[in-house]
This record gives sequence, structure tokens and C-alpha cells, in this order.
Amino acid sequence: MSNDFADRIIEGARAAGAPLCVGLDPDVSRIPALFGDGAAKIPGFCQAMLEEAAKAGVAAVKPQLGYFEAHGAAGYAAAELVCAEAARLRLPIILDAKRGDIGATAEGYAASAYDNFGADAVTVNPYMGLDTLEPFLSRAQARGKGVAVLVRTSNPGAKDFQDLDVNGAPLWTRVAEALAPAAARLMGASGWSGLMMVAGATYPEEARRLRDLAPTALFLVPGYGAQGAGAKEALAGFVQGPRGREGGVVNASRSLLYPPGAERAKTLAEWRGLIAQAIAAAKADLASAL
Amino acid sequence: MSNDFADRIIEGARAAGAPLCVGLDPDVSRIPALFGDGAAKIPGFCQAMLEEAAKAGVAAVKPQLGYFEAHGAAGYAAAELVCAEAARLRLPIILDAKRGDIGATAEGYAASAYDNFGADAVTVNPYMGLDTLEPFLSRAQARGKGVAVLVRTSNPGAKDFQDLDVNGAPLWTRVAEALAPAAARLMGASGWSGLMMVAGATYPEEARRLRDLAPTALFLVPGYGAQGAGAKEALAGFVQGPRGREGGVVNASRSLLYPPGAERAKTLAEWRGLIAQAIAAAKADLASAL
Repeated sequence: MSNDFADRIIEGARAAGAPLCVGLDPDVSRIPALFGDGAAKIPGFCQAMLEEAAKAGVAAVKPQLGYFEAHGAAGYAAAELVCAEAARLRLPIILDAKRGDIGATAEGYAASAYDNFGADAVTVNPYMGLDTLEPFLSRAQARGKGVAVLVRTSNPGAKDFQDLDVNGAPLWTRVAEALAPAAARLMGASGWSGLMMVAGATYPEEARRLRDLAPTALFLVPGYGAQGAGAKEALAGFVQGPRGREGGVVNASRSLLYPPGAERAKTLAEWRGLIAQAIAAAKADLASAL
Repeated sequence: MSNDFADRIIEGARAAGAPLCVGLDPDVSRIPALFGDGAAKIPGFCQAMLEEAAKAGVAAVKPQLGYFEAHGAAGYAAAELVCAEAARLRLPIILDAKRGDIGATAEGYAASAYDNFGADAVTVNPYMGLDTLEPFLSRAQARGKGVAVLVRTSNPGAKDFQDLDVNGAPLWTRVAEALAPAAARLMGASGWSGLMMVAGATYPEEARRLRDLAPTALFLVPGYGAQGAGAKEALAGFVQGPRGREGGVVNASRSLLYPPGAERAKTLAEWRGLIAQAIAAAKADLASAL
């Protein structure tokens, strides 16, 4: 089947006018008191964020499981609720889980991501090898879903192993090359593949090089906004298509979730206004650099 | 502080007479009907396994989170219960989560592992770089806990990236070398470090080479039993100490959880007998090869 996820992402970015992905990193110390106390703030906060994202129009949302799991099983259950709400709002869900394991264990993680969470794509770590990605790829291929593989990440330590020289080229390029068959398996009617590659906005030269190596892979670009990269850097791996520059989604989390003043908002309406403003500003910033 | 986890593992293996780690991979299709139906089987099955492990004497237990997460938030909560029970039985817990992420997200996963689950060690993936391991290492150092880093895994696909040649040596050796400062930080009074390295039993030559590169790292050895490696291969990275050969733990999961006949056991007593037999056989097999 043609990859529905890839097509939804590309069409969503076109419809929204910018390839913005809203990252859901719920940090209870920064969520306004009007959402309640402690971990109980999380579901309401995320639901309101999703409503603002849907209203504004964005390409995808990316719940970051580590922030939910910090609160144990209750946090995990909250992540399931948040994904159900995102699905109800028809927002494509990229579950940021960064899982990776062998055989039956990977099957468990894949079942969790696509079935329990109802995710449209899930982030995975390639270190253990291609066989460990297969449970994700086979489900994604059969059901028109996506898989987002860590290739060149946005953190300073990315250089430690990803940049090591393997016969004249960095390791991350070897990972990208090895994923070519997977990209072909998840090809959408749009000409883009549901095999996403994570390419940090903080390394635009690497993103351009990755685009040459993986011409059909949608990029999942972290590092825009709070991590320091601007729109130009974030879009370095995007290419000119018939409808403008495209090629993935750019994620912003903290800059959208905790814009100046929002933490001290007194009313939901005031908070919603600040969030809507932050999303609009990020979309305009990305659109101007497209 | 001296690393309490490293010392507990080494002393536990000595006391047990074999460095056996019992892997908890609850597969509901293979758990006997006497434990109930579907995912509800998991807590009782795991608790009974832990009781048999404690009775027999083993070095550690390793709950495999993917098997629990396959059942969503209820499965995640079951994993928390199972870890609490393991702690009550004073069994060192190596939480097999294979997490890895940047900054605050990694903090969330580390809090989840050590605080919510009460794990004594947690498996992590090094691909994203040393900064992504720091939240685990700093907690482990402050609290005498362990961190088990994937170095050379037991699956066939391990060769895809871990074996790539980096200036004359495979990538996994570069990972091991980069972990030397971390191993020093988690040093125990036993002379062994709470910085564990995952070294698959299916690759004994690699394990011997890893031992030369990381003389103080405890090895977490998967792949013994159902994955095909024997005791001799599993112990390839162990070295002669004052009290016999030592250097880590050898994990067995399916061969202990689902021994012949156990799936059709009619009574708990019958099932317990088969499990006790399987654990005793694995311990004797490992002891004979020490």
C-alpha cells in the first residue's frame, strides 16, 4: 500500500503553510497552576495544547514519552490519553519513544506504539542493527504508518559516535545508506517516504548531506527554537518541490509550550492566547524561510 | 561513594555459586492458564518467578520492559509492581529499558528507572552520545547504582553498525573505550564497576576482546540459552579472581520462564517444581563452566 503517513505529513505541512511539529514535553514545574497540581496537570495541559495546535493548523505533534514516564504508570497512562486526543483531532502523532531492542521485545514496543498509543510514527534507535527495526518497519509497511530513525541528532554529544569515521565517511551516513531499502518500502504517493530520519537543526551541513543520501526520507528536525537553531538551519535539508520547499517537519517544544508569560497566566483564555501567538510566530518564522 | 550495585552483583554471584540473571520476559501466550487470563497473568507469574529465583539464589533479575509495555499502561504498572516485589525479595534489579535521549528527556527516563521502578541498574543505548548517558551516570554515581550500556549485542544484526570499522577497530570497541571514565566513576570496593557493558553470549571472541578493553566493567551477557549460546561462550569475558572466575551476570529468560512442560502445568506446585529445576540446571551449567 502507498504510505498514508508520508502523504498526510506532506499534505498537512502544505495546508498549514509551514512544516511545524508541536512537541509535547510536559514539564510540571513549568505548566501553569491553572491546570492543577503536580502530574495531574499533564492531561489537561496537553489537551489544551493539542486544541491550539489543531486550531492553528500544524503538520504533526510529537509526544515525548520520557516526560510522561518520569511520572510512572500514571504518566504512561496520561500519554495514552493524550495520543487518543490527538487522534480525535486528526493530528498525526509521532511518538518520541526512541525504542530499540531485539526480536520479540521490539515486537512489544512496536505493538505498544502503534496499537496502544495509536501512533502514526515512532522514533527508534538504530544502534542494535537493522533486524531490530524490522518489527516497526513491517507494521508501518502493512498499515501505512511511519518509522523515524535516529540518524544525526541535535545534541552536542551526537559527535561522540555518530560522527566517527567509517572508511572515509561518518557513521551517521552509513546508517542513512543502510536505510535505503526501508525508505523504498514506506514510499507514499507524494513521492516522500514514511521512513523518517532524525536530522538535528543544529547541524545544517549534515542535514544537507543527509538529503543527498536519502532523497525521499522525510526529516524529523529537532533542535529548532529553545535548542538554538533558527528557521534557516532547521530547513537546511528541505528541497524545492512543485508546491514549494518541503521534506519533513521541524519540531519545536519548549518555545511553544512555555512562551514568555504563559507560566504565570491567570486564566485559560490568557494562556490560550499566548500559546496561539507562539504557534503562529513559529509558523510564520518557518514559512518566511521556506 | 563506593558502588554498592557492583559489589552486590559480585557478592550475589559468589553466594549463588553462579552468575545467573533471571530475565523476566512475560509472554502471555506462553504463561500457564493457572495464572489467569491475558495480561492479568503477568503480575502473578512474575511474582512466582521472583520467589523461585530468590529461593534458588541468583545474582540479579532483569525485567524486560518491552514485554510489559506491549500491554499499555496496565502492563507498565505491572512492571512497577514486579520491581517492587523484586526489591522486597532483595533481588538486584537490572531494568531492561534500553532508553536513550537528550537532556531533560533522559532525566525523565532516569527518574523513571531509579525512582518509580526502584531499579538498581538500567540498560541504555549509547548511539546519541555521552551527554545522553550523563543523567543515568550521575544518579548512579550519587546513589551507588548501575548503568548497563549496549556495547556488542547478541542479535545477528549487531554486525550492521556495531562492527563497522572505525580507523582499524570496530565501532563497539570505540564505544567501550569512551566509557572508561564512566567505569571509573562507578567503581565498587570489589574492584568491579557498576558501569555494566552488554556483551552478547553469541559472540565470545568479541567478549574476550571487550574484557581487555574494559577490565573493570561488569558484563551483562544476553543470548545464553534460548538464543543459542552455551555456558562456555557466555562466560568468555569472565576472568580469574581470588574467588574463582567472575565479571558480570549471564541472563537467561525463555529457558527459565517456559521450560518444557511448564506451559501445560496443572498446579502451581507442579509449575514451581519445573521452574526450580530449570533455574538449578542453568546455575549448574554455568558453575561447571566457571
